Amino acid sequence: MALDCTYRLHIPHRVGQLAKLTARIAEHDGIIGDIVTVSVARHEALREITVEVRDKAHADELARALEELPDVSVSWHHDRAFIAHDGGKLRTSGAPVTTVQQVRDVYTPGVARVSQAIADHPELADRFTMIGRSVAIVTNGSRVLGLGDIGPVAAMPVMEGKALFYSQFVGLTAVPILIDSHDADEIVETVLRISPGFGAIHLEDISAPTCFEVERRLDEALDKPVMHDDVHGTAVATFAAALAACRHVGLRLDKAVVGQIGLGAAGSGIANLIHDAGVDRLVATDPNPAARERAARSGLEIVDGVEAVMAQADVVIATSGQPGLIRPEWVRPGTVVLALTNPAPEIEPEAALAAGAAFAADGTSVNNVLGYPGIFKGALEAGATRINVEMKRAAAWALAGLTVESELVPDVLDPAVHAAVAAAVRKAAVESGVAALPKDAAETW
Amino acid sequence: MALDCTYRLHIPHRVGQLAKLTARIAEHDGIIGDIVTVSVARHEALREITVEVRDKAHADELARALEELPDVSVSWHHDRAFIAHDGGKLRTSGAPVTTVQQVRDVYTPGVARVSQAIADHPELADRFTMIGRSVAIVTNGSRVLGLGDIGPVAAMPVMEGKALFYSQFVGLTAVPILIDSHDADEIVETVLRISPGFGAIHLEDISAPTCFEVERRLDEALDKPVMHDDVHGTAVATFAAALAACRHVGLRLDKAVVGQIGLGAAGSGIANLIHDAGVDRLVATDPNPAARERAARSGLEIVDGVEAVMAQADVVIATSGQPGLIRPEWVRPGTVVLALTNPAPEIEPEAALAAGAAFAADGTSVNNVLGYPGIFKGALEAGATRINVEMKRAAAWALAGLTVESELVPDVLDPAVHAAVAAAVRKAAVESGVAALPKDAAETW
Repeated sequence: MALDCTYRLHIPHRVGQLAKLTARIAEHDGIIGDIVTVSVARHEALREITVEVRDKAHADELARALEELPDVSVSWHHDRAFIAHDGGKLRTSGAPVTTVQQVRDVYTPGVARVSQAIADHPELADRFTMIGRSVAIVTNGSRVLGLGDIGPVAAMPVMEGKALFYSQFVGLTAVPILIDSHDADEIVETVLRISPGFGAIHLEDISAPTCFEVERRLDEALDKPVMHDDVHGTAVATFAAALAACRHVGLRLDKAVVGQIGLGAAGSGIANLIHDAGVDRLVATDPNPAARERAARSGLEIVDGVEAVMAQADVVIATSGQPGLIRPEWVRPGTVVLALTNPAPEIEPEAALAAGAAFAADGTSVNNVLGYPGIFKGALEAGATRINVEMKRAAAWALAGLTVESELVPDVLDPAVHAAVAAAVRKAAVESGVAALPKDAAETW
Repeated sequence: MALDCTYRLHIPHRVGQLAKLTARIAEHDGIIGDIVTVSVARHEALREITVEVRDKAHADELARALEELPDVSVSWHHDRAFIAHDGGKLRTSGAPVTTVQQVRDVYTPGVARVSQAIADHPELADRFTMIGRSVAIVTNGSRVLGLGDIGPVAAMPVMEGKALFYSQFVGLTAVPILIDSHDADEIVETVLRISPGFGAIHLEDISAPTCFEVERRLDEALDKPVMHDDVHGTAVATFAAALAACRHVGLRLDKAVVGQIGLGAAGSGIANLIHDAGVDRLVATDPNPAARERAARSGLEIVDGVEAVMAQADVVIATSGQPGLIRPEWVRPGTVVLALTNPAPEIEPEAALAAGAAFAADGTSVNNVLGYPGIFKGALEAGATRINVEMKRAAAWALAGLTVESELVPDVLDPAVHAAVAAAVRKAAVESGVAALPKDAAETW
């Protein structure tokens, strides 16, 4: 597995040393990333250089090669991801309590008055507890990132990452909930029992078809937003990318024939969202009969095989999990091809363009982090009882609207993007009638 | 219910104005707390004055009385507890992600390498996820603070307060888990299912006898620390207070006859801990036959009625929930009396001293926040598989050792106190054999 390795190096502080170092890294096939100067003494500098390498063996080989340079020494080299994960990524905090008065305010005796008020007027919980801005990120780790069924504990770093983006991008408090079960009944029951503490339920990395049943049953049982991010977060980001791609080539997505290759969790979410959002015609395929049946029940038009999709679709979206699945000779001139399987796509964008595609991209930039933070933020702000197609469509439109020329999606690190998604989703929730009536501004003094 | 009310006031910025104001507050029976100057202009100051009043009606009456003062106006007055709870008290956060390299480190693609490493070597989860420093605070809100069974959502402010102290005092990440069930089976099953995500389980405000069964079954089923704070956190703080009280009057607690009045969750925890910690003789009483039986099974000596306890005990600890239960004529000269029921004790300390007690105190200063943060921190640091009597005793001894002359317990806001408790608990875990062997320092680069 390719990795970003950071080397901490003592280097002579003289002209030309860094040039020698970077040349040596290039000789050993390393792609240089950040170079950070930790400290500079009179004769020596301490630097951390990040290099993308193929694997651990390659990283070690490069360390030895750097040690061979005169007067250079390697203090250590580590996978940056492990450095960033040391101690875990998420913590809880609150305003510091430093005086006895503050203890009286946030704990005994003050807290009893707040608890009593909530017991008397349950609607006050949204304002005077964290519940109204908190999300449970629920997983059993049964389908992680292409790592597959690694279980909930090994999935924790992914959940912490998701939670981190919630806090950074939209100020929500997200808590990973790891459930060690593959049984839909057990997962649903467990989430229902702990649901009072959370304003919304974000399902993550649960394998199909369990994920569909879990989401449906929770959505029916709970009066709060529930969303399986692998299905809908990915669908929103992909829908937005498809809108942007069509705009780049002067195509109208709603008037185009859209082809969906692959109807797993992500693919069926994409197809359903684009279909429900009002595209003229959508054709889909998948080798799995159960997936085809499920899609047909959702009203999708099923065709037989990848070639059949390619023969009809103006806009092709592939989430098959099979690198190289699309042959160049199947690409019709003028088509938009989004081959999204990571890390290697169904067809390389260069090959698709060479075969006549008007636009082609792979999955590296279509990040579902673009969707979920703003979607849940908007839903919670609206007091929405669920996340419906109108809200997802509004999120995709907002993302597409913020995408600059030549890009497929907007910058995921731009807080304004997430704020815009949240605002669009909140508005859609209100207009589609799933927002709770404005909470009674109860006089609680 | 008495409350701390903050008044925001525009006051002329002249000599003598604050004196008039404070005199008016005194005339209306308010006890003045913090006075904060928000801003000062040439002729006017804006101040926030906190006043302890009897109830909301009293607070409103005082607001009107202050408005009547010449040139004084009240912008608003609010219960401080509600101000402190606005928006909830707890949030999650992590190191900010501001560059693409950081996204690669904490999320895709770096996170996959960390997840794969944990899947291959599960013991790495303690180091590279938040699990090893996280605590689930589990409640069903069935016995809150003397508010009784208000349910889990109304109990949330209490849980957030507990979690806040965890983060502030010992750097642990605590997450409230609200379970809407009174059934021990359901609570146990739910906690077991979500337990993979947490390093320890803190049970809070669950009514007896359910709490005993839930704690016992979780403790048996899980290889991680489990503790019901109402039972054991309170027991540790009370044991420490009893040690300090005995020291003040030159008594040895281990050689004394200890009397426990009330065998509910708190009382039985105190009695069991002091008994198991090796006191010579402990006599206890409770009107509830089930509570007496449970205590007898734990090896406690049951006597009949409060008077019988008072007649034999050198150190009396009362947690009966019944104000005024102890008659002054029952107090034997030289006794230590800790009457801990809040907000009104079984006997006022002044009355007990007048009746001949060598030392007397009520429950206002015996705060269980002294115990749980350090206990769980020490247990997690030791990799303890459970929290045993040796660890609780060590926590109490540490607290008693830090208590200065004339006080019953140390300062709860002093981080050094919690660090000392954690260190003592960690040591006790290792010495009593419940600490996991030092984790393999696996080379994970």
